[in-house]
Amino acid sequence: MAKAKTPVSLSELGEFGLIEKLTKDISLKHKTSLKGVGDDAAVIDCGETCRVITTDMLTEGIHFNLMYVPLKHLGYKAVMVNLSDVYAMNAIPKQITVSISVSSKFSVEAIEELYAGIHLACETYDVDLIGGDTVSSLTGLTISVTAIGEARKEDVKYRSGAQLNDLICVSGDLGAAYLGLQILEREKDIYEKDNSIQPHLDGYDYILERQLKPEARKDIIEWFKAEGIKVNALIDISDGLSSELVHICKASDKGCQIYPEKIPINQSATDVAKELELEDLVAALHGGEDYELLFTVPISEYDKVNNFDGVSIIGNITDSGKAVLVTAEGEGVELVAQGWDGF
Amino acid sequence: MAKAKTPVSLSELGEFGLIEKLTKDISLKHKTSLKGVGDDAAVIDCGETCRVITTDMLTEGIHFNLMYVPLKHLGYKAVMVNLSDVYAMNAIPKQITVSISVSSKFSVEAIEELYAGIHLACETYDVDLIGGDTVSSLTGLTISVTAIGEARKEDVKYRSGAQLNDLICVSGDLGAAYLGLQILEREKDIYEKDNSIQPHLDGYDYILERQLKPEARKDIIEWFKAEGIKVNALIDISDGLSSELVHICKASDKGCQIYPEKIPINQSATDVAKELELEDLVAALHGGEDYELLFTVPISEYDKVNNFDGVSIIGNITDSGKAVLVTAEGEGVELVAQGWDGF
Repeated sequence: MAKAKTPVSLSELGEFGLIEKLTKDISLKHKTSLKGVGDDAAVIDCGETCRVITTDMLTEGIHFNLMYVPLKHLGYKAVMVNLSDVYAMNAIPKQITVSISVSSKFSVEAIEELYAGIHLACETYDVDLIGGDTVSSLTGLTISVTAIGEARKEDVKYRSGAQLNDLICVSGDLGAAYLGLQILEREKDIYEKDNSIQPHLDGYDYILERQLKPEARKDIIEWFKAEGIKVNALIDISDGLSSELVHICKASDKGCQIYPEKIPINQSATDVAKELELEDLVAALHGGEDYELLFTVPISEYDKVNNFDGVSIIGNITDSGKAVLVTAEGEGVELVAQGWDGF
Repeated sequence: MAKAKTPVSLSELGEFGLIEKLTKDISLKHKTSLKGVGDDAAVIDCGETCRVITTDMLTEGIHFNLMYVPLKHLGYKAVMVNLSDVYAMNAIPKQITVSISVSSKFSVEAIEELYAGIHLACETYDVDLIGGDTVSSLTGLTISVTAIGEARKEDVKYRSGAQLNDLICVSGDLGAAYLGLQILEREKDIYEKDNSIQPHLDGYDYILERQLKPEARKDIIEWFKAEGIKVNALIDISDGLSSELVHICKASDKGCQIYPEKIPINQSATDVAKELELEDLVAALHGGEDYELLFTVPISEYDKVNNFDGVSIIGNITDSGKAVLVTAEGEGVELVAQGWDGF
């Protein structure tokens, strides 16, 4: 006798597993749909130019905690998360739409604060807010932003373009956003136990800013253009360096070697990691929420990249099919896609 | 001494009021942003063609109740709501993105059902699913769909285009979706009081289908094109006929006269209204969720429109500045935008 099938829980499958399951059979019918699911953004052919489209959703209690995230920062960050995906296609964001669902616990002034952050992000990054939806919810706040960017077809960069022996580069520094979150969570826990103790956040400015008010790397895309950098593969680091390296390797059908001592980590992140008895390298590899760009270039670009402040060469592309961290002792440790999972 | 300001609650301001407040100061910087907030969709100039972009968010307990909405229908409807907005710009939807936030109460199979409806809608309406986001939430289900449509610049129709003496036309029939909802709510209430009583839904097929599985009016747009109908203003009816008439009049700086006996109402909607001791006309005017198209054409188009089954001429555009319902007794009653309000 056939057994009744037990429903599979979402936590069993995980966020990546669910996305894979829901999108595995999708085929694109329109020849204008140049790229669908599977990169930082979808790409639509519009003749002379193309448009890249990306969308991210943030939910209260999962992606943000309003106990320590100011609404204005939240609005700003919700836009950044999406702009980062547009830059990761080597495109220029031009428009966004913003949809929110809010419960009646929020005041009009609170929602205006959220939008003040959204408007500030639009102004700073030269983006038009062209639409959206504002609806009510039974509980909490959900924000869904869609960003639309413009690029010439030949300029769009995919995560699948990495070539053998390419240099692997990363902008900025990694791990700080995750450590900022740990500090905020620690202070929240202390405050919840004893309301008379005020949060102690002095001296954590850098890592808190990385968590609460990240900036998308518009400047890196502009540098690519100004210097004529030949970029083969490009992806944004939102789920942690480790995950994104695996994505590049998988999409490009290549492998890579990464040198831990080359991974850029800010001194204050290292200090806080020590204070929290964490490894700064683990935060950099798996922490996520560093809205930096990871890209590969041919060796011929070495001088240009090496001479640019704010970009680090952290390894190279191999044909091993594996993403490998090469320790100081010369040992290889395989990296796995250990992204953030809310379920 | 200045008094501290009391925060304004969302219910005080209402959904329309909040949207107005949040969007009133937006100015568009890019010349490619042809239209922002204020129509069924935003319009982006892409050279030869343009793209229209629209987004709608549905939240559990506000826009749908999973006690009587099957997940597959919900997925289908979430897409329809957006495609209807694209057609209301006289554009052809080509791509959508779908973002969902789900709590752990949902099984993988439930989410697959939702996506089965989304995929069916994409297949039926020849649309590519090109991206989205899948995240967890603390409670409930939220669905955010963005639809992207294509049109030649000169073909895009706005709600602001109505001209004096234009005929006002509406596709299909109105009020049924609202009455379908009333039946579903009635049966839910009965069931909640006594679990042994099974919902009595036989004989309500038409109005239930209008509520649970609406279809967007692709065929009307195709008819416009095939017959070369000169359309001046176009809008979709999602918040109720009354609201949309006010929107057209306001955006076009015109007024209108509507004749109640001309408003198309299906016989089964009239029957159910009687059963529920409601006015079918009120359901048609204010009910909402009829994903039909409301449009105005010059009098020269009278023959073409009058001879087409499934389109009704319900009145004409005036210069009064008011949307007026002319009763059988010849009296004028001013219509107000009494859209759906979730707060």
